[in-house]
Amino acid sequence: MQNNSDLNELLNPRSIAVIGATNTPGRVGRIIFEQLLRFKGPVYPVNIRENEILGRKSYEHVEVLPETVDLAVIAIKAESAVRVANDCARKGIPKLIIVAGGFSESGEKGRALEDWLVSITQNSNTRILGPNTLGLFLPHNQLDTIFVDHGDKALAGGGGVAFISQSGSVGTEALGLASNTGFGLRSFVGLGNKCDLDELDFLSWFGQDPETTCLAFYIESLSQGRKFLEKARQTSLIKPVVVLKAGRSEAGADAVSSHTGRLAGSDRVVGGAFRQYGVQRVFDDEELCDAAKTLSGLPPAQGNRVAILTPAGGYGVMGADHVEMTRGGIRLEMARLSNETQEQIYKTSFSFASCRNPVDLTASANDRMIGDALSTIIDDDGVDIVICTAFFSPPSITDGLVESIASRVRDSQKPVIVFTQYGPFTDSYLRQFHREGIVGFPSIGRAVRAARFLVERAGILQSIRA
Amino acid sequence: MQNNSDLNELLNPRSIAVIGATNTPGRVGRIIFEQLLRFKGPVYPVNIRENEILGRKSYEHVEVLPETVDLAVIAIKAESAVRVANDCARKGIPKLIIVAGGFSESGEKGRALEDWLVSITQNSNTRILGPNTLGLFLPHNQLDTIFVDHGDKALAGGGGVAFISQSGSVGTEALGLASNTGFGLRSFVGLGNKCDLDELDFLSWFGQDPETTCLAFYIESLSQGRKFLEKARQTSLIKPVVVLKAGRSEAGADAVSSHTGRLAGSDRVVGGAFRQYGVQRVFDDEELCDAAKTLSGLPPAQGNRVAILTPAGGYGVMGADHVEMTRGGIRLEMARLSNETQEQIYKTSFSFASCRNPVDLTASANDRMIGDALSTIIDDDGVDIVICTAFFSPPSITDGLVESIASRVRDSQKPVIVFTQYGPFTDSYLRQFHREGIVGFPSIGRAVRAARFLVERAGILQSIRA
Repeated sequence: MQNNSDLNELLNPRSIAVIGATNTPGRVGRIIFEQLLRFKGPVYPVNIRENEILGRKSYEHVEVLPETVDLAVIAIKAESAVRVANDCARKGIPKLIIVAGGFSESGEKGRALEDWLVSITQNSNTRILGPNTLGLFLPHNQLDTIFVDHGDKALAGGGGVAFISQSGSVGTEALGLASNTGFGLRSFVGLGNKCDLDELDFLSWFGQDPETTCLAFYIESLSQGRKFLEKARQTSLIKPVVVLKAGRSEAGADAVSSHTGRLAGSDRVVGGAFRQYGVQRVFDDEELCDAAKTLSGLPPAQGNRVAILTPAGGYGVMGADHVEMTRGGIRLEMARLSNETQEQIYKTSFSFASCRNPVDLTASANDRMIGDALSTIIDDDGVDIVICTAFFSPPSITDGLVESIASRVRDSQKPVIVFTQYGPFTDSYLRQFHREGIVGFPSIGRAVRAARFLVERAGILQSIRA
Repeated sequence: MQNNSDLNELLNPRSIAVIGATNTPGRVGRIIFEQLLRFKGPVYPVNIRENEILGRKSYEHVEVLPETVDLAVIAIKAESAVRVANDCARKGIPKLIIVAGGFSESGEKGRALEDWLVSITQNSNTRILGPNTLGLFLPHNQLDTIFVDHGDKALAGGGGVAFISQSGSVGTEALGLASNTGFGLRSFVGLGNKCDLDELDFLSWFGQDPETTCLAFYIESLSQGRKFLEKARQTSLIKPVVVLKAGRSEAGADAVSSHTGRLAGSDRVVGGAFRQYGVQRVFDDEELCDAAKTLSGLPPAQGNRVAILTPAGGYGVMGADHVEMTRGGIRLEMARLSNETQEQIYKTSFSFASCRNPVDLTASANDRMIGDALSTIIDDDGVDIVICTAFFSPPSITDGLVESIASRVRDSQKPVIVFTQYGPFTDSYLRQFHREGIVGFPSIGRAVRAARFLVERAGILQSIRA
């Protein structure tokens, strides 16, 4: 297996062939080809049984394509896919994505087919992503081979998260999040069976990509454990590397072995190694997405003192409870606001506001008061992280609250995390905050957990720089 | 303070007056009155400045109403509200809801106003809900005084959860859930400042209500701790009582004191007492809603052995990890499927399916195979709880999967929990399962946590019956 390969032809190809492209609606080859029509470079359909696909000339074989494309997406069944992969390698096509399942994850025969793929990569310069992969989605390139519907793709753009997943289903969660509430993706990569390209290749690539601000991995088995860890440490000096390593428990590890045919590795060893090499560890898919969103959008915390601002007392109380629970070894504490801060908040809100931390402006608050109190709290030297509750039900609060908060957050060097929730409108408000570049969550527990990620990141930087 | 009052006039009134009803759009009095136009009995607007409100004759004072209503909703500012409450008590109106804030939660003057309300209840037979309350929502009665928009109310009906919240904002979460993903409410009650009616009154009432299958409380301070616990134990013999007691940490308790003017009570004492009295304790608002949904819809588990069925390997792995983590002292284990079960699953699916637990039918599965495997797993005597992953991205899986699963679950005595997720369509699938009476969650972690609730409930029943 080669390393440090140039993935440019895969992630930023000049031209693409789609093998198995078809006019038949609902087929994977049709979905992928149709999506790639938005791609800026040439995209050639290859299908021996059709002359024209969605208005474009179809080619019988890769041999007769007008150019040697950078990337071929092979969307046909396992056995044929292997034969075509061989043709592509002979033709000198440098990068292949093999979509089909039915390889090492599905028994003896599939394993033999996958061995064949491995031998193709060993005997050529062709590199393979997959098989059994959901493929790629790079919003900035309009490069999308994901054959399941993942909603409003516009909401996934403009972000810095490279999300790399060994599981297609976990991948769809991040993509779904993107369209539900906004999630700034630089790239989604489905690793599939990793017959060739694996997490190390993408760690290397996105680690060096200046537009990538955070790497998030869902991994069941590490193909090259030590090299991955060493590269992770280098990368972590520059940007966060978050990993969900599934298969922790005995039963989970058994399941990994059934699912991937590989050993999961002892969980305790993995935990220790991650700490040593500056990998930020998370424990489920929601946490992975939340950590990526937080760490790609906010700086590490300068300390662990959290202030909470709210117009709804109940969430101040629960927020304080969450802050004072120690989770994952990361201790937060409730900041002590200075007398000046408290006075200033009184002055700009009400005499009956509760100006200790949590700061409860009560349901009489309006957009301006929340913005003013937020500024005041940000300016308090005793505060490292601010959690601002954006609640839209109090009568004097309007949709203008989004801008009132955003204008203060834009000027802040300190991390500010928004918690917003308003029944059926929650996702819509989360999208509005996302568009303003603000990191928001729909539960106070998740907002406090996000603060923990920032404190943990600061600790990791300190320990790997030492 | 009186107890065991008859709350029929509040929760099932024959007639209602809305004081402060108005034609002015956006005002609380308008929103409440407009909503109550759907109420089946007479609803009278009271407003000294208007002759007609939304086409109905308006009354100047409660004194001139054509009848003594069962319930008056008072939607005017604090000081006037107290005066009107006094008028209502003199007129003999038995139940009042006082919406306004500006009472004990907001300083000296407010506290004096609230003391006045207390004296009204002490010198009359009138009972007060609030002040500072979001009010009531009883879908079966079309009785809705909630003045914040909470989406599609149709989705909240038909359920058995009595959700009683001291915090309005936490309340809106449950109501939002209802419209986002389906949540079967019997009743929502906002307690507000609890100047009179408190959690004990509603525990007594809904404990005896045959249509209520689960009680869920968000509480910051227990007004009558011992009586509440004793009533909870009686109730818990018949139906689950779930309580989120906020203000656990020191800072949280401080915040409760600012927010409500009451002491939160030592957290350790609360924890021990809850265990002793059969109260099922949860720790945040998401958990409260999830527990209520689970416990109102599914029987206690007969044991702690969980089987997981999935067409997506990654979630099988993470699910097994979640099962084998001990959380909140509740131990689950992965069930060992019998050889007959495994053979039967092979027979009805694929030779390459992984038929140990987690059962991974792979992305080649179809609706029928998942249904068949689900039946087979339900019938295995070594399984106490089944978690079924409903994934809609595999090519042979259609929307028919909902019915394929539902038809098997309907006949099952064993609890089956569905985990479903499909990016932007997740909520829609959750609603479909909800309509079929199936308990579903959008994360595998929450599905496993739901299994824990059922095991915990079984343990509580055992211990309080002993």
